[in-house]
Amino acid sequence: MTAEKYTFPVTDGGFDAVFREYRAIFEKQLRTVCDSFCDNGAKYKALYDAASYSLEAGGKRIRPVLAFEMCRVCGGDINDAVPAAVAVEMIHTFSLIHDDLPCMDNDDMRRGRPSCHKAHGEAVALLAGDALSAYAGKYICDSDLSAEKKTAMIKELYDRTLGMIEGQTIDTDGKFDTLDGLLSMYEMKTSELLTAASVMGCIAAGADEEKISAARAYAHDVGLAFQIVDDILDVTSTVEELGKPIGSDAQQEKTTSVTLLGLDKARELAKKYTEGAENALSAFENNEFLCRLTDLLLNRKN
Amino acid sequence: MTAEKYTFPVTDGGFDAVFREYRAIFEKQLRTVCDSFCDNGAKYKALYDAASYSLEAGGKRIRPVLAFEMCRVCGGDINDAVPAAVAVEMIHTFSLIHDDLPCMDNDDMRRGRPSCHKAHGEAVALLAGDALSAYAGKYICDSDLSAEKKTAMIKELYDRTLGMIEGQTIDTDGKFDTLDGLLSMYEMKTSELLTAASVMGCIAAGADEEKISAARAYAHDVGLAFQIVDDILDVTSTVEELGKPIGSDAQQEKTTSVTLLGLDKARELAKKYTEGAENALSAFENNEFLCRLTDLLLNRKN
Repeated sequence: MTAEKYTFPVTDGGFDAVFREYRAIFEKQLRTVCDSFCDNGAKYKALYDAASYSLEAGGKRIRPVLAFEMCRVCGGDINDAVPAAVAVEMIHTFSLIHDDLPCMDNDDMRRGRPSCHKAHGEAVALLAGDALSAYAGKYICDSDLSAEKKTAMIKELYDRTLGMIEGQTIDTDGKFDTLDGLLSMYEMKTSELLTAASVMGCIAAGADEEKISAARAYAHDVGLAFQIVDDILDVTSTVEELGKPIGSDAQQEKTTSVTLLGLDKARELAKKYTEGAENALSAFENNEFLCRLTDLLLNRKN
Repeated sequence: MTAEKYTFPVTDGGFDAVFREYRAIFEKQLRTVCDSFCDNGAKYKALYDAASYSLEAGGKRIRPVLAFEMCRVCGGDINDAVPAAVAVEMIHTFSLIHDDLPCMDNDDMRRGRPSCHKAHGEAVALLAGDALSAYAGKYICDSDLSAEKKTAMIKELYDRTLGMIEGQTIDTDGKFDTLDGLLSMYEMKTSELLTAASVMGCIAAGADEEKISAARAYAHDVGLAFQIVDDILDVTSTVEELGKPIGSDAQQEKTTSVTLLGLDKARELAKKYTEGAENALSAFENNEFLCRLTDLLLNRKN
């Protein structure tokens, strides 16, 4: 465990500056973690090289930022949220590595470079995902948090991980007869880990049940709105705006909220969950950053 | 969590009766766990059907028995070792499911019936393994143990899981130049989870560091001796005794302790680790069951 101590970004720098600083803190900590993978006697670098390759591939780091900011609005110390931020991103990364495998989505590329199994081989990628899942729990155990906070975090993390895995199982099929079925899958694949991040941030700060419930409601609705917005952009955006092929859902004959509801009703549904997320934030003071983050995630063009 | 309360077997029934009773307790608890997989809102049975299929496929249940017995010789309550026994067997089962996948050992059969991916498909098997790994940590968190015991157990479990995964990574190759390299792989693939089981049993009983160190030394040497005995039996046993093809190591051109050392020196090494294991047991009173178990594991014909 690093002895590095962090402080919350000063908020008067505005949203972008705070977001950048959160990410910088996270990337710095992640580097320390990846550098120390082999310190405890690991004799075979290949496994952790593959894990680091995927962990450090970037992404928006929404989950770590949520963990940090939920900790802040609950009056906590950012250092207590570091184990949560790292652990939830490990779980997210493990899910991406396994999702890309040939027996799952069979994706050769991830974030503009070869996916883990393309770069490191299928067996090592499988095992690197396995290692990250176990490491997440170990990492929280190795922290300076109280035993009570550790167990509350680990329970939240693995409970939500199980939900996420269930969502992946359902999604292997890709066909849904009902809106409920589809939304339930979105909830599992996306809301679950956003919830883990948000709730673990609250736990880090020793927040009460009321705050934890609000964080749960927030993450739930953000996840659903995010997925529905994704469906909408796939049919309304341009290749230039989206930065990736549009119409890919239709091409793969995927059931989406747009195919089930039509564009107008899908927009209404996205609005409903966006408002739900915004309302949940009223439980927190100093929620400007979270409001802005929500707006960016849900009123985006790509 | 079940409210079922168990008591330690009465030891005057002899080794076989005690072993049978330990296994019966474990199988009963496992049934309760598998029955409850979908109680907490899991909407997709396929995932947990696959997990249960592999969890309930049998096997000797050495790890659960070790957790129970280490708890007993350390003066604990068997109910406190139940979370350890279930969690470590979940990790063991997850490792077998992933080990059998086509990108790993590509084994169609496991314990006399189709391996998980043959019975449930590759994607679901992958995800069932993932679910069992996360469930292990959740299961300990959901128990009635103190937060301190929970975190100590989870740390031990996932630390050893990481070692086991590292061993699987090294073994994907199957070639070893040196005895040290081979033994290090054996240690990781076998000793690690035996250690987790033994140490978690001690933690359940609130054992001191001296007892935990002895349990660690015991499991380490048992694991190594077990693997070396395996190598020896592959060349000295008959098909009838072994119940599976002999000479399979040579056929697969695998490096084993026998190919590196020859039969006599391999036997000496197995003896060394067997004696090491036996010596470690002297730290425990009432160690007759453990001595007999060790003898059965290491002086076996199959």
